[in-house]
Amino acid sequence: MIDLFMKEKNATSQWFRYLRTIICQSFEKIEQELTGINADKLPGKFKITSWNRDGMSGGGEMGIMRGRVFEKVGVNFSSIEGNFTEEFRKEIPGTETSTRFFAAGISLVTHMHSPLIPTIHMNTRFIVTNKSWFGGGIDMTPTIIDKEDNHYLHFKLKEVCDKHNDSYYKKFSEECDKYFYIKHRKEARGIGGIFYDNLDTSNFDADFAFTKDIGNSLLDIYLPIVRKHMNKQWTLKQKEIQLVKRGRYVEFNLIYDRGTRFGLMTNANPEAFLMSLPPVVKWP
Amino acid sequence: MIDLFMKEKNATSQWFRYLRTIICQSFEKIEQELTGINADKLPGKFKITSWNRDGMSGGGEMGIMRGRVFEKVGVNFSSIEGNFTEEFRKEIPGTETSTRFFAAGISLVTHMHSPLIPTIHMNTRFIVTNKSWFGGGIDMTPTIIDKEDNHYLHFKLKEVCDKHNDSYYKKFSEECDKYFYIKHRKEARGIGGIFYDNLDTSNFDADFAFTKDIGNSLLDIYLPIVRKHMNKQWTLKQKEIQLVKRGRYVEFNLIYDRGTRFGLMTNANPEAFLMSLPPVVKWP
Repeated sequence: MIDLFMKEKNATSQWFRYLRTIICQSFEKIEQELTGINADKLPGKFKITSWNRDGMSGGGEMGIMRGRVFEKVGVNFSSIEGNFTEEFRKEIPGTETSTRFFAAGISLVTHMHSPLIPTIHMNTRFIVTNKSWFGGGIDMTPTIIDKEDNHYLHFKLKEVCDKHNDSYYKKFSEECDKYFYIKHRKEARGIGGIFYDNLDTSNFDADFAFTKDIGNSLLDIYLPIVRKHMNKQWTLKQKEIQLVKRGRYVEFNLIYDRGTRFGLMTNANPEAFLMSLPPVVKWP
Repeated sequence: MIDLFMKEKNATSQWFRYLRTIICQSFEKIEQELTGINADKLPGKFKITSWNRDGMSGGGEMGIMRGRVFEKVGVNFSSIEGNFTEEFRKEIPGTETSTRFFAAGISLVTHMHSPLIPTIHMNTRFIVTNKSWFGGGIDMTPTIIDKEDNHYLHFKLKEVCDKHNDSYYKKFSEECDKYFYIKHRKEARGIGGIFYDNLDTSNFDADFAFTKDIGNSLLDIYLPIVRKHMNKQWTLKQKEIQLVKRGRYVEFNLIYDRGTRFGLMTNANPEAFLMSLPPVVKWP
């Protein structure tokens, strides 16, 4: 059978893997630069582990670093083809006549030693069923609000969105606020960002270019914020607040997150789709 | 409107509240007895907080103790009447003609300082829609397996079950193993126990008596196990294993647990239905 999406699958897979590599390199460089708390420890290095799954072609590469700036950061790349279960296909567009799917993407969550440095989350993905679309986004979860960081995040994301479509920033930042809402707590997970799903303007090149720009913006946004805070002193009281805030993150990810649900429903590697869980958490 | 279940609602509510009280007293007594690690700290006391919810009658009482043997233990009593949402009623028997429900129960989870003492979970409840039924159970999750504890738990539960019905222990212990299974990890949450739901033999008194015996057995089972281990030395390495094991507990409770789902879907107090979450957890 001819694969009509061969070119797109290869192009997106290659790019997601490439983005993973430059992000890991940049984060390792940050580890070298520390002069504040924990500077007596050794800088971290990413450990990459490949995985694959029975009944699926392709697989994933989990990248994890336990460092001295990054307490735990997971950067996962995956590119898989398989079949949705009958139960799950109902939730996915384009599965009326076939359960076959392709999914490639990169996802990243940082958990920092310093409670002054926000957690950031980035995910970009390309999915093919009988349809094809992009999804993704970037959002930030600080322990202690820094208005400047907040404005910078949104300024940069608007800049990237505006290059592609005037309506994207408003629409996708609203979707982000709606998506990352912890309903049972009646509170937002973080300070927002952008979130998009089922993006298919019928122009693959344009949608891919947008997704690439979002992916590339991660380092532009996050590295200056990390460098701004990483060498500052922080207190145990601030650390406690961070550990409790992380509990909310866990609640969101396990109860509501579609990526986690996708992992659960596609029998993915739990070490990979649960890599975003924080290293230490408190529910006091 | 005449409430056909008035007597049953009152009787179960009162008993669940009474059981809460004797359990809290017994756990506070344990706190006094410590001579091992943490004996330099003050014994814990339960803090009871009442809650209620807009659009519901009744409410709950959260009991929480952060002690020196019990790192965090939640003992919740609740007795509420309200309406299920349209979405959730489909999952609940006896809601074809009305969304009205009554639910009373007690639930308890312990998280111990010592990794040698297992976590125990107990829940008993009485639900009324157009039908009425009991549910509940006791199950244990050790960090380090102690075969004697394991046998003792199952021996005692079988003893209680056998008093009521020869088929209960086999059936309910199998249901427990099936229910407390962490599918995505392909591992059991703990070492089992018993679990039952939708118990309605058309004999309220018999079903209530069984549920009371299960509730009462909690202290018979757990106190000797706590006393056996509480003054033993434990290592930081054992503690680390416990903190990671607790992560699996969180995954189960937030992804699969019906009680959590019941809380989420009935707009209950998150501080109450998430009280079972461990005080400190690691996903290293």
